[in-house]
Amino acid sequence: MIDIDDVAQAADRVHRAGTWRSVAARKRGLDAVAATLESHRRELVDLAADETHLAPARLEGELTRTIFQLGFLGDEAIGGTHLGATIDHSDASWGMGPRPDLRSVAQPIGVVAVFGASNFPFAFSVAGGDTAAALAAGCPVVHKAHPAHPRLARRTADIVVEALRSIGAPEALFALVEGHDEGVQLVQHPLVKAVAFTGSTSAGRALFDLASARREPIPFFGELGSTNPAFVTPAAWERRAGAIADGYLASVRLGRGQFCTKPGFLAVPAGASATIAAAAKAGDEPALLLTPGLRDGYETSLSDFAGLAGVEILEGGASADAAPPLTLLSTTAETVIAQPDLLEREMFGPASVIVEYDDATQLEQLAPLIGGQLTATVHAESDEDVAGLLGVLAERSGRIVWNDWPTGVSVSFAQNHGGPYPATTTNTTSVGAAAIDRFQRRVAYQGVPSNLLPPEIRDENPQRIPQRVDGSLVDPLAEGDR
Amino acid sequence: MIDIDDVAQAADRVHRAGTWRSVAARKRGLDAVAATLESHRRELVDLAADETHLAPARLEGELTRTIFQLGFLGDEAIGGTHLGATIDHSDASWGMGPRPDLRSVAQPIGVVAVFGASNFPFAFSVAGGDTAAALAAGCPVVHKAHPAHPRLARRTADIVVEALRSIGAPEALFALVEGHDEGVQLVQHPLVKAVAFTGSTSAGRALFDLASARREPIPFFGELGSTNPAFVTPAAWERRAGAIADGYLASVRLGRGQFCTKPGFLAVPAGASATIAAAAKAGDEPALLLTPGLRDGYETSLSDFAGLAGVEILEGGASADAAPPLTLLSTTAETVIAQPDLLEREMFGPASVIVEYDDATQLEQLAPLIGGQLTATVHAESDEDVAGLLGVLAERSGRIVWNDWPTGVSVSFAQNHGGPYPATTTNTTSVGAAAIDRFQRRVAYQGVPSNLLPPEIRDENPQRIPQRVDGSLVDPLAEGDR
Repeated sequence: MIDIDDVAQAADRVHRAGTWRSVAARKRGLDAVAATLESHRRELVDLAADETHLAPARLEGELTRTIFQLGFLGDEAIGGTHLGATIDHSDASWGMGPRPDLRSVAQPIGVVAVFGASNFPFAFSVAGGDTAAALAAGCPVVHKAHPAHPRLARRTADIVVEALRSIGAPEALFALVEGHDEGVQLVQHPLVKAVAFTGSTSAGRALFDLASARREPIPFFGELGSTNPAFVTPAAWERRAGAIADGYLASVRLGRGQFCTKPGFLAVPAGASATIAAAAKAGDEPALLLTPGLRDGYETSLSDFAGLAGVEILEGGASADAAPPLTLLSTTAETVIAQPDLLEREMFGPASVIVEYDDATQLEQLAPLIGGQLTATVHAESDEDVAGLLGVLAERSGRIVWNDWPTGVSVSFAQNHGGPYPATTTNTTSVGAAAIDRFQRRVAYQGVPSNLLPPEIRDENPQRIPQRVDGSLVDPLAEGDR
Repeated sequence: MIDIDDVAQAADRVHRAGTWRSVAARKRGLDAVAATLESHRRELVDLAADETHLAPARLEGELTRTIFQLGFLGDEAIGGTHLGATIDHSDASWGMGPRPDLRSVAQPIGVVAVFGASNFPFAFSVAGGDTAAALAAGCPVVHKAHPAHPRLARRTADIVVEALRSIGAPEALFALVEGHDEGVQLVQHPLVKAVAFTGSTSAGRALFDLASARREPIPFFGELGSTNPAFVTPAAWERRAGAIADGYLASVRLGRGQFCTKPGFLAVPAGASATIAAAAKAGDEPALLLTPGLRDGYETSLSDFAGLAGVEILEGGASADAAPPLTLLSTTAETVIAQPDLLEREMFGPASVIVEYDDATQLEQLAPLIGGQLTATVHAESDEDVAGLLGVLAERSGRIVWNDWPTGVSVSFAQNHGGPYPATTTNTTSVGAAAIDRFQRRVAYQGVPSNLLPPEIRDENPQRIPQRVDGSLVDPLAEGDR
């Protein structure tokens, strides 16, 4: 029986001791975790397949992504971009009156609680993106395991602890805890300074409310719900109907529809749904969903949706099978325009809704009706005037996908995985380089002697990181290259 | 009678129309506001002096700061640093699998509600830092006037509107509203996407709770309370007692102690308080506080503090005068160590607490007891070993001040005005260049043709702003300079 207070206290001691502050140590630690995961690949994928019912090939890819992500975020930490090192030398002629020497740099926020997701047992779980980003930011992590894959979570945690120990990192830098009540205690613990969460809107909102109601409120970086609508113009459909239908179906089927970026709605010209339904006849391979509870929730949301006026079942449908079939529903733009809250109904599983429109102007009527989204997708020809449509979608989503599908989420410098509520609870990303920024806070130093400053904001710049000096960006590595 | 829904709808239409998106327009608008304020300087300072009872010289300086800030944030907007423009070209050999072309850039978050503060009628009010930062970020602003200076608020708002109209900005880009209930409606309005607030912990927390409880929670950037402790080492006191006493008293007296950065606690060696009390005898000029209600609150907090066991009145004390005298209380490190919540009691007015310690080790016992602070100050000699003390203070505050006083808050690139709760509700700054970042959100574009991309993330970089391209910072202006 793990005591949450003991775990939080131990993690906070690591934070205060500052032994994990060195970016070089962070990089070594993240690389060690990556290498140790790789050396246990077979065992981990087997365990994950057994507990999640996801296909081994999909899990292999997810583990590769997870391992890459650890190294990538370690590189970002050591590169120093995210520290926002800024130096203002004293300036007697500064416009508002003499300016003292003032410097600022980001420092780790403190102990971070990370909640694992059910649907990505590697990439959004024990050693997933939130854990990697928090460690890269210099923060200790207490990970709350998702109950859908407890054995994998424990085994992965053992590997993380072993890897961090191998590079001499402090023992309490990472800990795993389990249990609903333990998760609640963690969010409410005074020494926990931020929470990262990926899961359902109901569970995420309940924890967000707890984090906000604390005596000292803390940031809650939650990824909750998204229906990821996709919009196909008449010209795109006319020229590429087959490829669009195949791409859409592959994206919906990925992970049996249990992706936060699954395209839940596809707006197409009238008549197109028959083509898609025909393409869907071939090759469906029903599989168990992540958990029986999740399957029940999926069936309920599917039955509710299918029962709405103006909605028809094109393919599949409600089923008592443990492994539900691919289900395509169809409706019309008129129906959705009359009841726009339809667009916020997420069905977490292998279902999606095809919305037929009579006339391309309806696309522009539909777009402003969508709620906050992780992604919005447009299939169009590049000579079409869709700037207005893209602008409306950019207001409502965190990523615009063009002539592609939203289920691939690359880990890179520019990636943004987050959008207006309920997609996420804050305007931040949980994937990509900027994920690190969430777990830092800036501190300014006024007139502090150089030997007492953090090295990142000394004039000598011993770590050769990017600095903003008196307003100008200076990147010593870029200069050295020239 | 202004209808909040009408105001929010009009502001949101400006946001959606995108007419304020151009950074060049933002710069012109901010400069126009700055110039128009300057041309009304005499009138505005007189009005402010009449309504706030603050000294004209102090108000002159504050207006200068406010005017400078508008231009500075306009320059920052046009410089583009805050857009975080990031370009990842497609890469077939990317470590986790082929990477699509992926680019991201910050865009305005939407309508921002700004609550004016009582104690800075210019710099944290109608045309103050939050308004300037939101406009610089490209957001429409609805400003809730502070009831302590309604005539100044209305006049300043007229000037802002006139200036924005003169450059052809959309009419509803800025609006002033008044009234407690109107403020509450604003925080709860679905089209308001962020709130900035400077004020008391009780009022700020109530609004934060409303913002967090919305169906769509929004960020609430609140600056609430801070006692800004200052720590003086024995060596510093021995060598510079007179200068430290004078500097401390000047800082406490500034604006009659109605500064969010007033040093509320000063830790000094035993016996030092007599020196400070003697220095305080000279030159106190009592003045009315901002409002009668604020004066009553101040007297209550002062009487409560002075009545605590182990606390003595050194100078001044509770008073029935509308213009209360400077009051210095004294206590001992032992008293504070036994009741650390003393350190969180803010007295908003001309009072401060001198904490005498017997032995320098008590400084290191006191430092970990402070709550979240905007600032923490250290007076020490540069050959002393105070790295540990600075580290502890950096954990608990947003700015470390060395051998100086916290009441000067320069507007610059590196400034940070924000700290752990209750200093602020989020890990962000309301002063300096980074204040802009609060009112933006990032959007990624995957595979979008160049002509449909925001110009900031096109390869041609027509605005010549800093971009991160495939992981490397590229600043076209820095290159051109070489």
